[in-house]
Amino acid sequence: MATDFPLAPAWQVDQWLNSNRPLDLAALRGRVVVLHAFQMLCPGCVSHGVPQAERVHRLFAADGVAVVGLHAVFEHHAAMTPLSLAAFLYEYRITHPIGVDMHEASDPVPLTMRAYALQGTPSIMLIDRQGRLRLREFGRIDDLTLGRKVMRLAAEVAPSLALSKSDSPSQGECSEDRCEVAGDSLADPST
Amino acid sequence: MATDFPLAPAWQVDQWLNSNRPLDLAALRGRVVVLHAFQMLCPGCVSHGVPQAERVHRLFAADGVAVVGLHAVFEHHAAMTPLSLAAFLYEYRITHPIGVDMHEASDPVPLTMRAYALQGTPSIMLIDRQGRLRLREFGRIDDLTLGRKVMRLAAEVAPSLALSKSDSPSQGECSEDRCEVAGDSLADPST
Amino acid sequence: MATDFPLAPAWQVDQWLNSNRPLDLAALRGRVVVLHAFQMLCPGCVSHGVPQAERVHRLFAADGVAVVGLHAVFEHHAAMTPLSLAAFLYEYRITHPIGVDMHEASDPVPLTMRAYALQGTPSIMLIDRQGRLRLREFGRIDDLTLGRKVMRLAAEVAPSLALSKSDSPSQGECSEDRCEVAGDSLADPST
Amino acid sequence: MATDFPLAPAWQVDQWLNSNRPLDLAALRGRVVVLHAFQMLCPGCVSHGVPQAERVHRLFAADGVAVVGLHAVFEHHAAMTPLSLAAFLYEYRITHPIGVDMHEASDPVPLTMRAYALQGTPSIMLIDRQGRLRLREFGRIDDLTLGRKVMRLAAEVAPSLALSKSDSPSQGECSEDRCEVAGDSLADPST
Repeated sequence: MATDFPLAPAWQVDQWLNSNRPLDLAALRGRVVVLHAFQMLCPGCVSHGVPQAERVHRLFAADGVAVVGLHAVFEHHAAMTPLSLAAFLYEYRITHPIGVDMHEASDPVPLTMRAYALQGTPSIMLIDRQGRLRLREFGRIDDLTLGRKVMRLAAEVAPSLALSKSDSPSQGECSEDRCEVAGDSLADPST
Repeated sequence: MATDFPLAPAWQVDQWLNSNRPLDLAALRGRVVVLHAFQMLCPGCVSHGVPQAERVHRLFAADGVAVVGLHAVFEHHAAMTPLSLAAFLYEYRITHPIGVDMHEASDPVPLTMRAYALQGTPSIMLIDRQGRLRLREFGRIDDLTLGRKVMRLAAEVAPSLALSKSDSPSQGECSEDRCEVAGDSLADPST
Repeated sequence: MATDFPLAPAWQVDQWLNSNRPLDLAALRGRVVVLHAFQMLCPGCVSHGVPQAERVHRLFAADGVAVVGLHAVFEHHAAMTPLSLAAFLYEYRITHPIGVDMHEASDPVPLTMRAYALQGTPSIMLIDRQGRLRLREFGRIDDLTLGRKVMRLAAEVAPSLALSKSDSPSQGECSEDRCEVAGDSLADPST
Repeated sequence: MATDFPLAPAWQVDQWLNSNRPLDLAALRGRVVVLHAFQMLCPGCVSHGVPQAERVHRLFAADGVAVVGLHAVFEHHAAMTPLSLAAFLYEYRITHPIGVDMHEASDPVPLTMRAYALQGTPSIMLIDRQGRLRLREFGRIDDLTLGRKVMRLAAEVAPSLALSKSDSPSQGECSEDRCEVAGDSLADPST
């Protein structure tokens, strides 16, 4: 069954922002990875894709989900340098790790963008706990749909954990929701 | 473990709209239920809660999630009759089942609203596949958060299914995502 | 030049809300009147037209602009009674005067809506200080456009001041607005 | 009466984009000028100020209104070069003229921004047909309010027409705008 989905291509990144060490898929194995490709001067990325990714980063951290941005510049290269990108991230208060997609020779399209065969920006990719590419979508995706898709992958058990896990896989993670339903404030209709 | 969460109180409903038969929690056992309480003249319900519930209804149907609205009128009773409600549902193109919460004697607050101890409208409740109340929240909840919470419950196995289920619980449901990542259109960087 | 625009038809109203006396165009002569037609269960009215009218009411009061709502019910009549309308206005914090458009015999379309030959709701009409209908538009109009149109009329001098004014500067610019009021489709109340 | 409002300070601009010739206030005398100051990496400018200015440009052109943007970079200077700005304008489809505010010596705040004593970006200034500064506002201004203010100035007659006009009717109403331009905090470039 694991062969149904291709492994996500490796990332080829010049430098990382919002991270004090390089990131790669091997190190993130066991986690769900939300990878989004953007350009700092792409209007749909600025208004939708980038802030949405930041919200996912903040909301799903406790679910074993890692959010990674890929600055995939394929136009206006001189206008979107890492220096400008750093100012952009600062001003928009983006805190999740961002990798600068690497260029080779004279190809305007960077290497990771090519490896994922992206049509443009914004694009979003979902990579499961086994490192397999499960979704690749160009354009806007609404929050409800994204929340559903990310959580579905987050609810899958990692291969190494699956053996020792009993019958109720996501139960242990629900402590947060439990807090929201305070037992004593709930009217018990049976009493 | 099942005792940690209270069972969701029964619904006491005068009549149903968008459903040709009465609904109750027993009949929905095994499904995740998203129950939202609203009033047709509550601005936050009209602009946020009701259309959000309709989106959940359309998006999560394939995940074993049932969305049910509760018209919980606790003010302006004569202004929000079932007749007016029916016109509201028609004009706003709401297709999920709506129950009219029942009043008793002179109490302005209807019975189901009392049973769930709701503070007001809009409120949203999540009931798991075992019929337990897992979330009860008054006010607005954003789409990303709701998508995450609903999917987390949808990913839990139902008690009766848990025994016969092997190690990869949500795998079988992912046919939709699989379609989105067409294997042959994906550039394989290793070839 | 005053003959270029038809006089706005009289209003035929059953009852007024948010006003302790009946309103009519004669009493408002000398002021610019923003008249908007709506139904309390019309989604575009609730999300856009009605709150926009309320903003105009609050913003342009000092400019000699009067905002008047017309509850022009042409469908779901039993669902949108004055009693329900009053609750709606209360919940949505609408403070400008609202007239309930009058029905005659078995015609589902009310009288004032007929007199203005409205296509539906929401519709917005602008009436100048001389009582002439200068704009009649069905559907949404954006805030910037509406602010421009209302202020242009507000900047025109009232008839009593017009004697010393040779050529009203903004008059000639109104050809655009004129196009929006198709002369032959407009019922002329004087004939 | 003309002395009540200060003349708008001259613009000191390095280069112009979206214009094949330099612009200055003298050449625009007789028109209403909407001047907005922005930075291409200022979130409030990108989401609100800049697209709003473009809408005003398109909507009010026939009313004798000129919209001019001022790229007033006071932070992240190396990240917001004219080269990056040009790509920004292209991607966001901004068509109105943009001047790059000039820097002097080591002052991080550019010259025109100093001359107008701006607090930050976005800021919007309204200059009347006589070249006087009538509004200077820092932060967001909503579309309805802006449409009203711009049209009020557009309805004022130009100086050459003003001779036959006794008392400009909308002049007296501008006390509100005056409050928004604190006289003593405004640098007067003529002294």
